[in-house]
Formats: sequence, C-alpha cells, structure tokens
Amino acid sequence: MGSKMICRNDLDFLLYQVIDTDELVSLERFAEHGRETFNAALDTAESIAIDYFAPHAAELDENEPRFDGERVELIPQVKEALDQYYGAGFGAATQDYELGGMQLPFTVSVACKAIFSAANISTLAYASLSGANANVIGAFGSESQQRLYRQPLLDGRFTGTMALTEPQAGSSLGDIATTAEPMVDGDYRLRGSKIFISAGDHELSENIVHLVLARIKGAPEGVKGLSLFLVPKYLVNEDGTLGPRNDVVLGGLIHKMGYRGTTSTILNFGEQGGAVAYLVGEPHRGLAYMFQMMNEARVGVGVGAVGLGYAAYRHALDYARERLQGRPPESKDASSSPQPIIAHADVRRMLLAAKSYVEGGLCLSLYGAQLADRKAWSADAAERERAAMLLDLLTPVLKSWPSRYCLEANSLAIQVHGGYGYSRDYPVERLYRDNRLNPIHEGTEGIQSLDLLGRKIMMHDGGSFKLLCDEIQVTIESTRCDSRIREFAESLQAALDRFRDTTKALSNLLREGDAKHALANSSLYLDAFGHLVVAWLWLRQAQAALAMQAASGSESEAFCHGKHMACQYFFRWELPRIEHSCHLLRALDTTCLAMPVDSF
Amino acid sequence: MGSKMICRNDLDFLLYQVIDTDELVSLERFAEHGRETFNAALDTAESIAIDYFAPHAAELDENEPRFDGERVELIPQVKEALDQYYGAGFGAATQDYELGGMQLPFTVSVACKAIFSAANISTLAYASLSGANANVIGAFGSESQQRLYRQPLLDGRFTGTMALTEPQAGSSLGDIATTAEPMVDGDYRLRGSKIFISAGDHELSENIVHLVLARIKGAPEGVKGLSLFLVPKYLVNEDGTLGPRNDVVLGGLIHKMGYRGTTSTILNFGEQGGAVAYLVGEPHRGLAYMFQMMNEARVGVGVGAVGLGYAAYRHALDYARERLQGRPPESKDASSSPQPIIAHADVRRMLLAAKSYVEGGLCLSLYGAQLADRKAWSADAAERERAAMLLDLLTPVLKSWPSRYCLEANSLAIQVHGGYGYSRDYPVERLYRDNRLNPIHEGTEGIQSLDLLGRKIMMHDGGSFKLLCDEIQVTIESTRCDSRIREFAESLQAALDRFRDTTKALSNLLREGDAKHALANSSLYLDAFGHLVVAWLWLRQAQAALAMQAASGSESEAFCHGKHMACQYFFRWELPRIEHSCHLLRALDTTCLAMPVDSF
Repeated sequence: MGSKMICRNDLDFLLYQVIDTDELVSLERFAEHGRETFNAALDTAESIAIDYFAPHAAELDENEPRFDGERVELIPQVKEALDQYYGAGFGAATQDYELGGMQLPFTVSVACKAIFSAANISTLAYASLSGANANVIGAFGSESQQRLYRQPLLDGRFTGTMALTEPQAGSSLGDIATTAEPMVDGDYRLRGSKIFISAGDHELSENIVHLVLARIKGAPEGVKGLSLFLVPKYLVNEDGTLGPRNDVVLGGLIHKMGYRGTTSTILNFGEQGGAVAYLVGEPHRGLAYMFQMMNEARVGVGVGAVGLGYAAYRHALDYARERLQGRPPESKDASSSPQPIIAHADVRRMLLAAKSYVEGGLCLSLYGAQLADRKAWSADAAERERAAMLLDLLTPVLKSWPSRYCLEANSLAIQVHGGYGYSRDYPVERLYRDNRLNPIHEGTEGIQSLDLLGRKIMMHDGGSFKLLCDEIQVTIESTRCDSRIREFAESLQAALDRFRDTTKALSNLLREGDAKHALANSSLYLDAFGHLVVAWLWLRQAQAALAMQAASGSESEAFCHGKHMACQYFFRWELPRIEHSCHLLRALDTTCLAMPVDSF
Repeated sequence: MGSKMICRNDLDFLLYQVIDTDELVSLERFAEHGRETFNAALDTAESIAIDYFAPHAAELDENEPRFDGERVELIPQVKEALDQYYGAGFGAATQDYELGGMQLPFTVSVACKAIFSAANISTLAYASLSGANANVIGAFGSESQQRLYRQPLLDGRFTGTMALTEPQAGSSLGDIATTAEPMVDGDYRLRGSKIFISAGDHELSENIVHLVLARIKGAPEGVKGLSLFLVPKYLVNEDGTLGPRNDVVLGGLIHKMGYRGTTSTILNFGEQGGAVAYLVGEPHRGLAYMFQMMNEARVGVGVGAVGLGYAAYRHALDYARERLQGRPPESKDASSSPQPIIAHADVRRMLLAAKSYVEGGLCLSLYGAQLADRKAWSADAAERERAAMLLDLLTPVLKSWPSRYCLEANSLAIQVHGGYGYSRDYPVERLYRDNRLNPIHEGTEGIQSLDLLGRKIMMHDGGSFKLLCDEIQVTIESTRCDSRIREFAESLQAALDRFRDTTKALSNLLREGDAKHALANSSLYLDAFGHLVVAWLWLRQAQAALAMQAASGSESEAFCHGKHMACQYFFRWELPRIEHSCHLLRALDTTCLAMPVDSF
C-alpha cells in the first residue's frame, strides 16, 4: 500500500495540453524556463513527496502534536521533510532569482503543491503558510521587515502564520478586538487572543512570524479600522540574530478531526504587558494586505483539497482493480471466479465521479494559478487586467469547489473500499478527515458564496462575469462543430445561458438594494457557478484529449478515452443539477429565509 | 454542552399524529399497552440515555478498546450503561411477557433505539446485536439452543454477534469459505476466519454467542450451500453453567474512523482443531435465517443513523442560536451588535436541510417499524401480508436513506459550527465519524440498490411496489384539496408518476433478461426511491401538523409551522432532484458501465 500521488500523465496533460503552460515561457519573467525546468521541479517534488512526506503521514496523524507546557513536540520526520523541501528550493520556488528563488510560474508551484498535498498535507501546511506570509511582507513590508523576516521565511529558518480569527468574531472580521497601542519608538504593543491559528507554535523553525490583524487604539470600528502587524515569536536584532522571547503565549492546542499534524493554536498576545508588534504598510489597510495572503491561501486550500481527493481516488482505483469480489449481474454462477470489483457498474460510477471531481479540480486549480501568473507578469497591461478580473471572480470557486467535491471523492474512496475504507489501516479515512477542514477554513462555503454573489459578480459592473462568459463561449464555438463532443458543447451552451439569466436577475435585485433576497440562497449560486466552470474546463479537457490522440495515436488512446468519459460523466450526471439550482435562485425561493427561529 | 437527544415533542408527534401508534393497541399482542406505557418506556430510555450512555460517549471514542493479548479492555462506563439498559428491561423490550419481556411494539423499541443511538451508539451496539441474535435463535433455534442461549442474551448475561463477512468474500456471501465438519455427536467443528465482526470480543458479558455462516463439507457452492451455526465463546453445560473455552480466537481488533467503542474484530475459528458449532435449523438454509437477523439489523442501522444525525442537528441548532456573529446583508453597520448565526439565511438553509433529513429519517424508521409490528401481529392475514410486502420492499430504503442523508446532516452540523465543528472539543465531528460507518455495514449502498431494483421491485410481479404507490396515492388524494399543502401533493403526484414510469421501464428490461443495463445505475434508483418515500412521509407530517394545529391552537403553532417549512424545503429543494435521476435511468445511460478499466 504505497503512497498515491497525482498521476503525472494527467498533470502533464493538464499543464501542457489544456492550460498551455508552455505559453508562459514567452513572458520575460519565465524566459529562462521551459518544459525541462518545469518537469525537473515536478520530478523533484514527486521524489521528495514520496521519500519524505508520504511515509510519515499516517504516523503524524496517529501522533498529533503535544504541548508539554513548554514546547510543542512533533514527530521528527516533519522537520526532516521540511528540510528536504527547503533544501530543494521549494520555499522560494516562485521568488526572484536574486532572492535565491527559482522564478517558477505559480502554475508549476501549484502543481507541486498538489503533489505534496497528496502525500502529506499536514507537513506541507507549515511551508505553505510561511510562503504566503513571506509574500505579504515582500509586497507591503518595510525594508527592515523584508531584510529581517522575509528571507528567513523563504529559507525555512523562520515559519509564518496568518492570525485573523478571534474566539468571539470567527468569520466576522469586523468584530476583531485585538488592539495595538502605539509606543514612542514607533512600534506597537499588541494585546488580544487569536484562535485556530495554524502552525501557531512548534519547534520546527528558529522563529515564528505572526501576521496579525488588530485595531490601533482609536481606529474606526469594523473592517476599515484593521491594521496588519508583524509579531515575531522571538524579537530579531538588527543583525538578524534572535533577541528575547516576545509576549506571545500558546494558550493551547486545538485537537482536530483531521489535519492533525498541523498545530492549530490559541495564541495569547500581550498577557505580560504587550507583544512587540510592527505595523506592516499603512494603518487601517490591514484587511486589504491580509487579503493578498488570504487569496493565495484560498487557491492553496483548493489545490490542497484536490491533492487529498486525488490521492484517495488513486488508492480506491488500485483497490478496485485488485480486490476480487462478486460476479456480474448477468452471470451469477457461483462456481465462476470472482471478478475485480472495478467490473461492477456501481464501483465504476463511484470511481468515475471521483475522477471527474479530482481531475476537474486539478484543472481548475491550474487554470486559476495561470491567471495569477498572467496577472503578475504579462507584458500587456490589458492582459494583466483581464487575468486579474477573472482570478478575482473565480477565487471563491477555486477555494470552495474542490473543498466540496474533492471531499466527496474522499467519501467515495472510502465507500469503494467497503469496511476496509472505514478502518485506520487504510489511508482513505485519514484523507477524508484531513479534507473535511477545507470547506471551513480560510472562509467557509457560506462566506465564499457571499463573496461571489454579493461582491465579485457585481465588480466592474458585471464585467468580470461577462469576461468569463466570453471565455466559455469561445470554447463552445470551437467544439460545437466536432460531432464527438457536440453534445457537451450544446449542454454547456444551455447551462451558460440559463446561468447568465439567473445572474442577471440576481444582479438587478442587488442593484435595487434587496441584498436580503438576492443573497438568501447564495450557496446554491456558488455551487452552480462552480459546476458551470468545471464543466467548461472538462470540455476543454475533452477537446485537448481529442487533439492529443490525433497527434499521438494509439499510445495515448486509453488515457484520452478516459478523459472523454469523465467529461461525459460530468456533463450527463453532474451539470444538469444546476438547472434546479437556477430555478430556485430565479424564483427567489424564501423557504430558508422565512423559517422562523423558534420553528426549528 | 450537554448531550442532545431526539426531541420528545417530535417523537410524540411522529408516533401519535403521523404513524398512529395508538392503533397498535387494538392488536391483541399489545392489548395491555397504551400511550402511558409507551411514554413510560420512552421516558426511561431517555433518562438512561442521558445519565448513562451520553456521558461516556466522548471518552469511549478517545479511549477505544484495547487488546492486551489476553483480554479486550473497555472503559468501565460501557458495562455500567449496559447494566442499566438490561436492568430496565430494554434487552427484552419486545419479547413475550413469559420470557420476561415487555411485549412492546417494535415501533416503540425503535423510538427508544433512536434515543440511545443519539446518546452513544457504540455502547448501544453491544445490546442491539445481542437482541437481534436472540431473535434468530428464538425463531429457528432448537429447544436446547433457546434454553441455553436465548434467555441469557435477553438478560444481558450473554451478548451476541452476527459473523458473515470473510476477508476474501466481503459482500459476496456466496464465496464464504468457512467450513463445518459434522461430528459423530451430531454437532460440528467449524474452521475459518471472519472479519469486521462487531462486538466479537470483550469482557462485557459472561459469554459471547456467535451466529456464523459456514459451509458444511460437501454442501453446494454459492449462497445455497450456507448453513447457520451457533458458536459460543465458552461452551455451555446442560445446566446453563459455563464450560471450557471454545476454539474461537481473537485475531485482532480493527481500528476504525469512528464507532470506536464497538469492537470490530477478526475472529479465527478452529485454529486448534475446530470450534464446537451447533447447527441452527436445517442445513443449507443459513442465509435465509441470517436474513431475519440482517433485516432487523438493517432497520437498526437506519435508525442508528437517524439518532447520530439527529443529535448533531440539535447540537448545531443550539450552537446557531447562541453563537453571535455577523450582521444581516441589509445592515452592515459595524457598530451594531452581532446577531446569532441562525439569523443568517445560509445557516438556516443548513439547519433546515438537516431538519428535513433527520426528522424525515425518523419518520421513515418509525413507519418501517410499524410495518414490522403489523406483519408480525395483525389479526388479519391479508394485513400481515400487506405489511410484509411493504417492509420487504422498503428495507433497503430504511437502511440506506438515513445512512446517506442523516450523515449529510452530520456534515452540515460540522459546517454550522465552523472551526469549532472540526475540533474534537465539540461532539459533532465524532457523531460524523460514527455515522460514516452506516452506508457501509450490513450491506453497502451498492448492495442495497441491487437488492431493491434487482429483487424487491420484481417480487410479487411488482405487487409490493404497486402497494406502496397506492399508499402514496391515498395521501395525495387526501391532501390535494387543502390549499395549504396542495403544492406538495401535486409535486408528489408528478414525482410518483415519473418514478412509476421509470420503474416500469426498468422492470420490463429485467424481465427481458437484460440485468446488465437495467441494474447499471441502480444506486440512482435507490436514491430517487428513498427521496420519493421520504417526500411522501413529509407530506404526511405536514398534513398531521395542520390537523394538530387545528386541534391544539397556538400552543403548537411554532412546532407545526416548522413541520410545514421542513416539508416545503424537502419538496422544493430535494424532491426535484429525482427528475434528473429518472432521466438517466430511463435513458439507460451507459457512461459508468462503458468506462473501460484501463481508461481510469
């Protein structure tokens, strides 16, 4: 029962046949890159994931971090794996050459992240958070913050956190109560308590850099009064050496259903008078800065969910091919040999559904990552703007669709295993438990749906949404003449038209100020939107598979046919479900809104 | 954070207003009963559940059974709770008075089971299995088997198991390889290995009675060659005292995702020459006997799933009422006070969905249980036959619908709690993990779907299905004239017509011998059928709520309105999904069937 990785054939197909990652090389930023360097990065990621990440995933789950009152202990393999990760340069994979980075496209680093997530997401999380943390400091930090904190974060000497959530506030960031008091030296003293801070304490690094949302005394209420602070666990001297311990205390570890290897912490700031805190950027702009990190984290949540679902799918596939049990319905001869369970139609249904979710999710993540690359590095300002609009619009989908459907792939993988899938001797139950976090953290599904319908759809006067519809229309036009995939093109056209109408109706209502009714069923909208986008990407996969097969012939026949069938599954079994969602949305169904609290 | 039980108002409503449990009293079997005795049993169940079952549920989960090589150790509260359970007579609740039983209707005992399951399903499982085991011995065992084993099982001195599954066979019972060799004394020596045997070893009882499916040497292949054997852990002397240890050895404990308090075991029979085994009933009829136990266990799985989902729903409801966070979309004033999260439409959506699943599931379980009572005890042979036909038909639904949708309620309950729901400090993640077993054991969803479409629908030349359709039609006729619920009656009529057409088409195909295509999408059929049945029962709930409100006035207004809204949710948000399933079924969609193994 070896570890299961992202299928490299699939990754190559998505990167080079569907997303056209080759084109990124034409951007100056990536001029020195090409398939060779991209594949080298993927090879290295795969080899470190197999040799150092996967082997301790189960042991880490069974031996979650312990706090002895002084230190948080983790099994030693976590540190060994992270040393390999940083040693191979993944900590700074996308960074500038002069920062010791590889200047890899974000697209390729997201592909690597899928590989590491499939192997062991709990260990990866320490590095992922640190990278996102370093990026915020890189974008908004002062020169000295960059010098003292950013580089050690990229090297893995320091690790980072994002500290938003408070016990009383949760998703409602406007109610954050942590305060920052300005001192005569220009720095601040921070006081307050944060909860669910991932990687908030451990001994994996020399120092931990907390990026904390807090309110400077006297600042406005709500999110507009939030500022971003850098609060290190140990103060850092001007020469980069570590100074005394800062006033940040671990209040306790939270023990979770899964994702157990990543510490989840309660952090108390300023219990001994005030934690030394450095303002990042300008006052009262903290939420905007944090959202740079948050948006990266949301893409990361999505691809993490893909990795966990993908690994489970591959385990289930192996199991279904090897496990002999039962006979086909048309031949119940008891003396015949049992067949592999993959021969049963219902097992194939579960595997095909899982395939459509995880490969669809991976394509979605890579597409989103490519938008981030184009937004950041395209030479053409209009192209950058276009990519930025699409990425902003799609971020709630990039986060939530894989969190929901790749989690469903995990559940299907358990089901394929039968009783064995429910036992802790097989990895699929752990992968399920790990993935169950993803619809919750970095903005729940409900929060994502409000962000999508209440903000993103309305931005640029609906321009981002129109841009996406145009992109989808291009794919429809280029596929509807091919009889092999015309069925899908036509279904997509119908779904697009329907969804566009629904969007228009809800947008009008929002413009009229009736947010209450327009947003009441936002989670249906998010779900339907995600299915529309993934269906579109599945059609692109089917189209690319046809092209690839024409080019490579029988060698890739089985693979390409599998893509076609998964596309067919998604179009016939999944996409039609949005019809009913659109109906409820257009009808402004008030069932949920109207349910009185005392009638539950 | 106290334990959450089944809402007694709801249980009373379902038992007395919807299912008409009062009518059972007219049967001779229950002549001495009435609401008073039923309610006394429910009160006692609730009090034992609260005082003895719920308090150790979390501790049992965190301290799962351990095998020290000699004995299986459990925390002592399990035994204390079971002593209370047996002491109050629940071990023999439905048994004859002369056996020390209470002669309660199965309907009431199922209601009690929901209460115990909500409190602590792992502890309950030891008693549930024992009860089902005793019933098989009662129905098919010899006089001496009854005398020596049945009564101690009802008293709780002995506990029981059902041992079907083997490592190489799983769901494919025809491949069972355990053998039984006849001895000169008329008994048998049993050899083989069984896996996933719940409650297969522990120190909770003086003896463990295994009911084992095995093949007498020379018996036919397949399920037709299986016989049922009684294999005690300790041999029992003629005077009832315990004799020597039998040749049954614990091969190991299986560590599970949830349901951790119930031991799941590998049992090796006959490693030291042969386990002494007693044939139950006639040779080669083992599967039929076992299915008596299995069918009872399947209803039990369903109601257990209801209990777990229901408890989670009630936890989520309390949390959503108390947790202050965020503001309504129409008033984003940061200085206003945060509202309870139940005020958010999306939280209400999750709670309403969960309510429709768990209250719908409870109604389904009670309806099924009442059929079992009528099947067993009606004075009228035609009525017994009618109930038997409906119960047989519905058993796959009674097992699988709550296992799927009440599990979904568990997931929604986690989501309502946000990050807290993912932490082990709150019970909802445990309840989820416990419930994830239910779609797997006692026949997976796939197995249930084949049983339903391949066997049950076809039985009596479609007569059972016709009987159910007639029942549904009666409800439609009695509701379509009431403008308050006409919408639901009309939706149900449309869904029934559609589903009947689909069934007819598939039945014709089966009669033509094309099982391969007819059964290919059987899991869609099971799911759609379950939704149709639960929608029907929701309409009955809405109808009963209107009647109750007319009778009791404002006292029950909020409760009755809640029933109406949950019905509305189910009809508007859930039932329409079967339309697409019927479409795929009628189209005989071959996507899953046609997916080649090497294209995954």
